[in-house]
Amino acid sequence: MKNLSLLVLNGPNLNMLGSREPGVYGRMTLSDIEKAVRHKALKLGVKVEFFQTNHEGELVERVQKTRGRKQVIILNAGAYTHTSIAIRDAIAAAETPTIEVHLSNVHAREPFRRHSMIADVCAGQITGFGADSYLLAMEAAIRLADR
Amino acid sequence: MKNLSLLVLNGPNLNMLGSREPGVYGRMTLSDIEKAVRHKALKLGVKVEFFQTNHEGELVERVQKTRGRKQVIILNAGAYTHTSIAIRDAIAAAETPTIEVHLSNVHAREPFRRHSMIADVCAGQITGFGADSYLLAMEAAIRLADR
Amino acid sequence: MKNLSLLVLNGPNLNMLGSREPGVYGRMTLSDIEKAVRHKALKLGVKVEFFQTNHEGELVERVQKTRGRKQVIILNAGAYTHTSIAIRDAIAAAETPTIEVHLSNVHAREPFRRHSMIADVCAGQITGFGADSYLLAMEAAIRLADR
Amino acid sequence: MKNLSLLVLNGPNLNMLGSREPGVYGRMTLSDIEKAVRHKALKLGVKVEFFQTNHEGELVERVQKTRGRKQVIILNAGAYTHTSIAIRDAIAAAETPTIEVHLSNVHAREPFRRHSMIADVCAGQITGFGADSYLLAMEAAIRLADR
Amino acid sequence: MKNLSLLVLNGPNLNMLGSREPGVYGRMTLSDIEKAVRHKALKLGVKVEFFQTNHEGELVERVQKTRGRKQVIILNAGAYTHTSIAIRDAIAAAETPTIEVHLSNVHAREPFRRHSMIADVCAGQITGFGADSYLLAMEAAIRLADR
Amino acid sequence: MKNLSLLVLNGPNLNMLGSREPGVYGRMTLSDIEKAVRHKALKLGVKVEFFQTNHEGELVERVQKTRGRKQVIILNAGAYTHTSIAIRDAIAAAETPTIEVHLSNVHAREPFRRHSMIADVCAGQITGFGADSYLLAMEAAIRLADR
Amino acid sequence: MKNLSLLVLNGPNLNMLGSREPGVYGRMTLSDIEKAVRHKALKLGVKVEFFQTNHEGELVERVQKTRGRKQVIILNAGAYTHTSIAIRDAIAAAETPTIEVHLSNVHAREPFRRHSMIADVCAGQITGFGADSYLLAMEAAIRLADR
Amino acid sequence: MKNLSLLVLNGPNLNMLGSREPGVYGRMTLSDIEKAVRHKALKLGVKVEFFQTNHEGELVERVQKTRGRKQVIILNAGAYTHTSIAIRDAIAAAETPTIEVHLSNVHAREPFRRHSMIADVCAGQITGFGADSYLLAMEAAIRLADR
Amino acid sequence: MKNLSLLVLNGPNLNMLGSREPGVYGRMTLSDIEKAVRHKALKLGVKVEFFQTNHEGELVERVQKTRGRKQVIILNAGAYTHTSIAIRDAIAAAETPTIEVHLSNVHAREPFRRHSMIADVCAGQITGFGADSYLLAMEAAIRLADR
Amino acid sequence: MKNLSLLVLNGPNLNMLGSREPGVYGRMTLSDIEKAVRHKALKLGVKVEFFQTNHEGELVERVQKTRGRKQVIILNAGAYTHTSIAIRDAIAAAETPTIEVHLSNVHAREPFRRHSMIADVCAGQITGFGADSYLLAMEAAIRLADR
Amino acid sequence: MKNLSLLVLNGPNLNMLGSREPGVYGRMTLSDIEKAVRHKALKLGVKVEFFQTNHEGELVERVQKTRGRKQVIILNAGAYTHTSIAIRDAIAAAETPTIEVHLSNVHAREPFRRHSMIADVCAGQITGFGADSYLLAMEAAIRLADR
Amino acid sequence: MKNLSLLVLNGPNLNMLGSREPGVYGRMTLSDIEKAVRHKALKLGVKVEFFQTNHEGELVERVQKTRGRKQVIILNAGAYTHTSIAIRDAIAAAETPTIEVHLSNVHAREPFRRHSMIADVCAGQITGFGADSYLLAMEAAIRLADR
Repeated sequence: MKNLSLLVLNGPNLNMLGSREPGVYGRMTLSDIEKAVRHKALKLGVKVEFFQTNHEGELVERVQKTRGRKQVIILNAGAYTHTSIAIRDAIAAAETPTIEVHLSNVHAREPFRRHSMIADVCAGQITGFGADSYLLAMEAAIRLADR
Repeated sequence: MKNLSLLVLNGPNLNMLGSREPGVYGRMTLSDIEKAVRHKALKLGVKVEFFQTNHEGELVERVQKTRGRKQVIILNAGAYTHTSIAIRDAIAAAETPTIEVHLSNVHAREPFRRHSMIADVCAGQITGFGADSYLLAMEAAIRLADR
Repeated sequence: MKNLSLLVLNGPNLNMLGSREPGVYGRMTLSDIEKAVRHKALKLGVKVEFFQTNHEGELVERVQKTRGRKQVIILNAGAYTHTSIAIRDAIAAAETPTIEVHLSNVHAREPFRRHSMIADVCAGQITGFGADSYLLAMEAAIRLADR
Repeated sequence: MKNLSLLVLNGPNLNMLGSREPGVYGRMTLSDIEKAVRHKALKLGVKVEFFQTNHEGELVERVQKTRGRKQVIILNAGAYTHTSIAIRDAIAAAETPTIEVHLSNVHAREPFRRHSMIADVCAGQITGFGADSYLLAMEAAIRLADR
Repeated sequence: MKNLSLLVLNGPNLNMLGSREPGVYGRMTLSDIEKAVRHKALKLGVKVEFFQTNHEGELVERVQKTRGRKQVIILNAGAYTHTSIAIRDAIAAAETPTIEVHLSNVHAREPFRRHSMIADVCAGQITGFGADSYLLAMEAAIRLADR
Repeated sequence: MKNLSLLVLNGPNLNMLGSREPGVYGRMTLSDIEKAVRHKALKLGVKVEFFQTNHEGELVERVQKTRGRKQVIILNAGAYTHTSIAIRDAIAAAETPTIEVHLSNVHAREPFRRHSMIADVCAGQITGFGADSYLLAMEAAIRLADR
Repeated sequence: MKNLSLLVLNGPNLNMLGSREPGVYGRMTLSDIEKAVRHKALKLGVKVEFFQTNHEGELVERVQKTRGRKQVIILNAGAYTHTSIAIRDAIAAAETPTIEVHLSNVHAREPFRRHSMIADVCAGQITGFGADSYLLAMEAAIRLADR
Repeated sequence: MKNLSLLVLNGPNLNMLGSREPGVYGRMTLSDIEKAVRHKALKLGVKVEFFQTNHEGELVERVQKTRGRKQVIILNAGAYTHTSIAIRDAIAAAETPTIEVHLSNVHAREPFRRHSMIADVCAGQITGFGADSYLLAMEAAIRLADR
Repeated sequence: MKNLSLLVLNGPNLNMLGSREPGVYGRMTLSDIEKAVRHKALKLGVKVEFFQTNHEGELVERVQKTRGRKQVIILNAGAYTHTSIAIRDAIAAAETPTIEVHLSNVHAREPFRRHSMIADVCAGQITGFGADSYLLAMEAAIRLADR
Repeated sequence: MKNLSLLVLNGPNLNMLGSREPGVYGRMTLSDIEKAVRHKALKLGVKVEFFQTNHEGELVERVQKTRGRKQVIILNAGAYTHTSIAIRDAIAAAETPTIEVHLSNVHAREPFRRHSMIADVCAGQITGFGADSYLLAMEAAIRLADR
Repeated sequence: MKNLSLLVLNGPNLNMLGSREPGVYGRMTLSDIEKAVRHKALKLGVKVEFFQTNHEGELVERVQKTRGRKQVIILNAGAYTHTSIAIRDAIAAAETPTIEVHLSNVHAREPFRRHSMIADVCAGQITGFGADSYLLAMEAAIRLADR
Repeated sequence: MKNLSLLVLNGPNLNMLGSREPGVYGRMTLSDIEKAVRHKALKLGVKVEFFQTNHEGELVERVQKTRGRKQVIILNAGAYTHTSIAIRDAIAAAETPTIEVHLSNVHAREPFRRHSMIADVCAGQITGFGADSYLLAMEAAIRLADR
């Protein structure tokens, strides 16, 4: 799809990657992931925005702004995945195809991480592959946009 | 009641009205609602503040500031209705009469929208009448202030 | 809307208003409410029927009879709100727009009063404003009929 | 079985058939069903009573009166199916074989329609075949009486 | 207490006593119980009304009418014990001391009979002693009235 | 309906009928039921296949093969009724009208037998009439096919 | 019944009556209750043992010792009512008719007091009449022994 | 990783793809997916086995056989995803890295499809991208094997 | 008991013992267990069949075939223990005394392993002793047969 | 294992065996079981202590005292099995291998007997074999001590 | 506060400290804690009683005896924290200010340790600081007594 | 511990202290608490930061910044205690010892305040002592830092 741009949105505590519980999240920093994402975007010929925030309201607003644009959102909402109806509503309001990603296998952790408030308004989920979850989502995003 | 002012508070994604899921929320924008509210306030002879934010913390603070003032809050907390103990605590702390409103009939949607964390610290609820929910709440607010 | 008539239906124990738990329901009798309703109906130019019964089956039948008429039902089903699938089915069968009202804030009382069996087949709810709940519902009814 | 008579009992809102949610319940009226039932009764050589009421207490009493008679009850308790312990107790008290019928497939609708308070004191259930549910129940009733 | 009168209220299916599930309810008819109750009333020097109905609404109304009278209600609400918020509300509205009785030990039967919707607005419960439950309640009623 | 054929599918342990818990399932063997079914099919002028298996996967495949044929399935899935999403999906995939039958009244037994995983993708259920459940289902099947 | 003796068993914290939460339990001490019980026993012509302990194990053993004797137990197990399977098993093992009593209306207090672990192995319950609960139970005990 | 082979396992009803609920699963047949998988395998230079079965036991055994081999499993367990502890145990026993895939967004369907019995013993999940779920999983598999 | 034969049935993944999660299941293979079982059978003078399958349907059928024989089943149903109503029904249908065994202490693992669908139709359970669970069950089986 | 001694601990109401619900627990007294246990201990060459108490605290203390000794506990905690965290903690504190035994099949009785608070800190369970449960546990204990 | 005395109550298994699960509870013995408590009491100028028991009934009685004295209770009820309504009732009956303490962080352990039956009748809780929990509670007790 | 600094973090609505529900929270303002905290810090020789915010995201970020510093966090997360996984994750990511404090006894209030999302990643909790909860936590913090 021409002129597709990807918005890679990262929620709370993802700015702590690299040092944060490396047994769960690995040693790559968010900056490392951003580099890999930008590198792949170049190869795929798509534009990419990369954004992190610890504020639920900012995630809501970033999602809202995609409305009516040729975008796909790749969203790692972090802890807000499990609690935020506001982000869920933003995705539904924006009508932008959204892919939910997680670094860790959320199903192999605490029970409260097994439920996603946003999963049923997303197009799909990619979970458990570390930084690769983002890169796979980029490929999925392009195919999604092509449909 | 003399000098009564109304604070109409709008939570997350209400800035998306008009385009957001029109089958559920209708075609009026938040700006259209604001106009109708201001128009009715003129007729009723009350002051009105109209505010929207996507941030839970800002809703908390707006509610807090009403403490000790001659105000009634008309609150459409959007998605935070169902999850925010912080807004609930702010209403209890402010001791300002508050009316919960919703555009859509929240009881006819997903199960998680049936429960309100704030309903039992509000004076009452008006739900399901679209923009009219706000206008009815304005009348209710004046009667409430008169008691 | 021309020739609109309102049916104000009251369920069990609402005939006890005035003496019944005045801390919860106030000091107005049902007859006081009826007067206020009739007075407002005159001003609004609509016909009004006002009816109370303690029998679930009679509520069912009163709702049924509205089918195909230019009516809006204002329904305070009292205790049956929380248990009656029969009344719910009657509303769906009649296809008459119905507004659920409550005098008290049902959300600030026992947990079993938080769930309404009829809410999702009603157009909207107005709860917690005492007798004003009925008067607000009358205004809502007219706007509903105008749509 | 000689002298068998069938009591076909219909609960709340079944008097609305034909116009009531035809997508769910079809276009036949209760009177159409009664005709079909009476026609089949003639062919089967059994007497039949056909009764509808919107009142739980009347269903209770109709069931009670079958005690000690050569009857089988065909019971479509409508909404009371899911809430009435009183009807359940009446069936147990009457000791009359009872067949639970439903026009629609109650399992494919709202979750609260999946549970029947009376099923375990009935002999069997026939559900989902529209008016044919009654006719099949008539055949089942005869075989039941023959045992 | 002078001029005390007792209202003995019996709910659905209690008119079937004697033949109804005698293993659970014994062989006494409701008429036998009434006689025993009237006999004891004579000895105790209290007036007594004895009433049975299968209709929830009638129980509601009988309870309502005691308001402001020197009465104690002895209430065997039968199946409605477990489902009726309307009867519960009537007791609270009437502000008449009420004693809940049951013939059988409701705790040793189906799980749905373990919960009483009316117990917490009654003064006390007497359960499991067959017809003696009524007679014990009469003594309890007199002591209650004497307080 | 011309050329209709019925597929009577029996799940696990139905090959044990006759000796298996006769108090629950009666003394007829599956072979006795097959005979009665074939006899009735002759009278009704429909073809019939009769099949039993203890393997979930085989039930899935038998259901699948009906796709696109003029068939109605009469399905007693036995224990798989309560646990098999695979059979449920097969019915939905085949788009063949299916009637769920049970010999015993599943609602009067252990709680885990009250829930059917397949009921809401079936056309209807006939439960509790012993072998007659199958014969009634055959009549229902023909009327279903005629619609 | 000749030679009947009553065992009045009191569980934890009943030795604190009089001072303990008088709003809930009244001002009578356990010793006052014992006197009333012994006085009534004289009138009724039955022997009575009266015992209090704060130890679950002692309640178990007192119950056990009644096995094979002409006794009826009047048991106020206090807090152990809601948690003790051991006392329940002791009652079943002793096969001694047991009447559960409570001073307060346990249904009008915290939710965890609504469930009794022992109710279904008792003959009946008398709840909410203060010290009268014991005296009523004594009468019930005699009638129970006479059956 | 050298000599890596992929085992693509498909569970019940996936042989029905193409005709099965195309609104949910799309129009591609399983054979179309197999072709796409084989084509991509060629490009990636990995071997691939492709297998479908409707039998839980066969899925268990196919998983078991991978133990000790250089394989990654791509597993669409279909309906067994939600119910099979046996397949889960097989994955844990085989110690073969496994990627869970689904064609549809299981989170946007019936509630019972939201829980996966196998997710926490898999390396990751890819859900909701139709046939692309498989192709993305192939890339993920290679990266997984390279770690 | 003369001519007693034991049927030792093993469910899914037990063929993986030795290599499968040795921390949980130990290092013995199923073949090692079979040898120990056969050796003990010789000493005890009983015949023994030893069988493993990963298919629920085959377990069902093996259980069925014991009907009417002098057998005791020693059943390690593996993962099907927690999900299979079909195996449960087979045990009830066969009326063969059955002993449930587990190698590991299922109560010290995931919550879903704490519930057994078959326990209440078995004579008893032996859990947590590794291969010794089987050998203890053999002794239990003989005593069971002697009763 | 040399010098092994077994501590056989019996909880509440086990002193009532023989007369207590013989349909559930059989006709053997606890003294009969003790004899059988001592007889088998002689044959096995192990010392044995045999103890019964109705007091939770004493069970706790008996378990505590085994710490650091060459003992295995065979524990029938009776009713405390289902409620006692204190006994559970004692087992964990003592670090003495413990085998949970029950005379009856606890899974075939009331639902509250299906859950054991101590099972996951025990080595294993033997349930349902009457007095044989103890004797089998003795053999298991020796093998456990040998590991 | 003058003449304040502290009662430090320790429940089941706290006599095992030092050796009991040191990873959870540390290496200090209860005697070490007693010394630290007595040392701090000297410095604070308060009397102190220090008591441990494994018996619920003794904890109940120790709490009861504080009624009407100038005492504050520091209570580590151990396992009874989570199950004992009797201790809860004793605290309410005694009306003595009580501070709940725990050595370990009960919220980071098994789910059943997250709920305290006594917390809402205590003044406050101090949890997770090992022996320091007691010493901090002593300071809190003094401030509490000063209010 | 040298150079220790304490970060005292206060969540939503704590800026309202003094006027906010004084029956629950007392009459001290947050500024009063800050003074008491700073005064005690001087005495203890530790640095202290004191911060309040109504924004979840700011709490997250303040917690994050402590990573790698010699700090202990004293955290009163207010309403976010019960809902915020984001703050929980921040504590785990920062690896800074954290003490959860509350002014009121959260266990004696609404049920939703009994559960803390952050308790199990904190070192300990101090609850219910008003402003003293902070001062006790400061002492606990120093001891924690000394370990």
